[in-house]
Amino acid sequence: MTAAPKVPKYYAVRTELERIVDTLEVGDAVPAERDLAERFAVSRETVRQAFHELLVEGRIERRGRGTVVAAPKLVQPLSLLSYTEGAISHGRVPGRLLVTWEDIVGDDELCGELQIARGSTVMHLERVLLADGAKLGLESTFLPWDRFGSFTDTFDPTTSLYAAIREAGVTFGSANERIETVLASPREATLLETTTAMPMLLMHRRSLDVDGRPIEKVRSLYRGDRVAFEAILRE
Amino acid sequence: MTAAPKVPKYYAVRTELERIVDTLEVGDAVPAERDLAERFAVSRETVRQAFHELLVEGRIERRGRGTVVAAPKLVQPLSLLSYTEGAISHGRVPGRLLVTWEDIVGDDELCGELQIARGSTVMHLERVLLADGAKLGLESTFLPWDRFGSFTDTFDPTTSLYAAIREAGVTFGSANERIETVLASPREATLLETTTAMPMLLMHRRSLDVDGRPIEKVRSLYRGDRVAFEAILRE
Repeated sequence: MTAAPKVPKYYAVRTELERIVDTLEVGDAVPAERDLAERFAVSRETVRQAFHELLVEGRIERRGRGTVVAAPKLVQPLSLLSYTEGAISHGRVPGRLLVTWEDIVGDDELCGELQIARGSTVMHLERVLLADGAKLGLESTFLPWDRFGSFTDTFDPTTSLYAAIREAGVTFGSANERIETVLASPREATLLETTTAMPMLLMHRRSLDVDGRPIEKVRSLYRGDRVAFEAILRE
Repeated sequence: MTAAPKVPKYYAVRTELERIVDTLEVGDAVPAERDLAERFAVSRETVRQAFHELLVEGRIERRGRGTVVAAPKLVQPLSLLSYTEGAISHGRVPGRLLVTWEDIVGDDELCGELQIARGSTVMHLERVLLADGAKLGLESTFLPWDRFGSFTDTFDPTTSLYAAIREAGVTFGSANERIETVLASPREATLLETTTAMPMLLMHRRSLDVDGRPIEKVRSLYRGDRVAFEAILRE
């Protein structure tokens, strides 16, 4: 089996554009679309498609009306560490913006996963995750109210939730994670200042304490142009 | 901070379409775009965008000229197991199609990662990964020729490479993986029978044996509509 499909024009332009980006530093301006269209003798539309791919991959990013070389992706370790600890270990300043903080009645699936009685109250915390001020992801955490209800009075939602859970005397024991790629919903795209055409990394996590009791259910959506995951596997 | 952006029309249609899909079985036909456009009193273009999102998420898939409910994603465990073992553990029949098998001169980066002398020969094996006959991913493996060159005569590239490596007396000890989301190149999209607009899961892996000696460098690209990853984390 062999395959040698013809390379579309936009892909040749993309390859050239990558070479140009490789010679630049983070934050440097990328030549304008119209200049590149002229230089490569192709249409603006062709250049735009090449730009789109490098934007999606996080090589370049829009800044104001121009385009600049993007900072490397934040690499999140797949571990029991929090987002905060992952960001700090990569030299980034973590931050969080509160979007939603509410008490809800858990549905049967959620109560089952949290191993609490049907119809129990669940605390829902939705936050935008920041690194160096840039919006990286949207995290929706569900906690059993019986166990963490006191956070309503004590927890500052712009700080690390895992730190607060540990301070409450709870020790993380294990977690199960599922990773997929999806497109953002219109609401998610708005909150993360991106578009519904941007591929996102979606992570579902359920964490248990050292006694095997569920601590949280989390749904995290990360911008694919700004975040990668890293795992170290052992026998 | 609150956010209540208006829900675009296509997203409302998407939500309705999901409800319809939920009532159907895998392989059942999904109503045609023109019928749904009529039913919801929206344009064909609006219905098409809703279809696109459910296609990207692997809820539905094209079959011939129609659209059917898709089988659940293959969930690949993040572990030292091979693709083959992951597929079998989920009740799927794994398969592989050989695309490229060649000996190359490793560049400095590759030789460094494989801890072999600069300019050493490296075996490159590129295969399409199948589950129940469906194309799920494209795997590019780089092996030190000094260690695995005999595979040229003995290895059947439609079978499990990890099984062959283990039969050669090598024991996997650890691996480092990086996971991102990207768009496929035109060549990759052709090989995987998808489009360059389909988000993909990209995985880079480096595996070491129990003595810490590199076994392989792998670049795997998985169709985001057909594959998810799963990790179990412990302290």
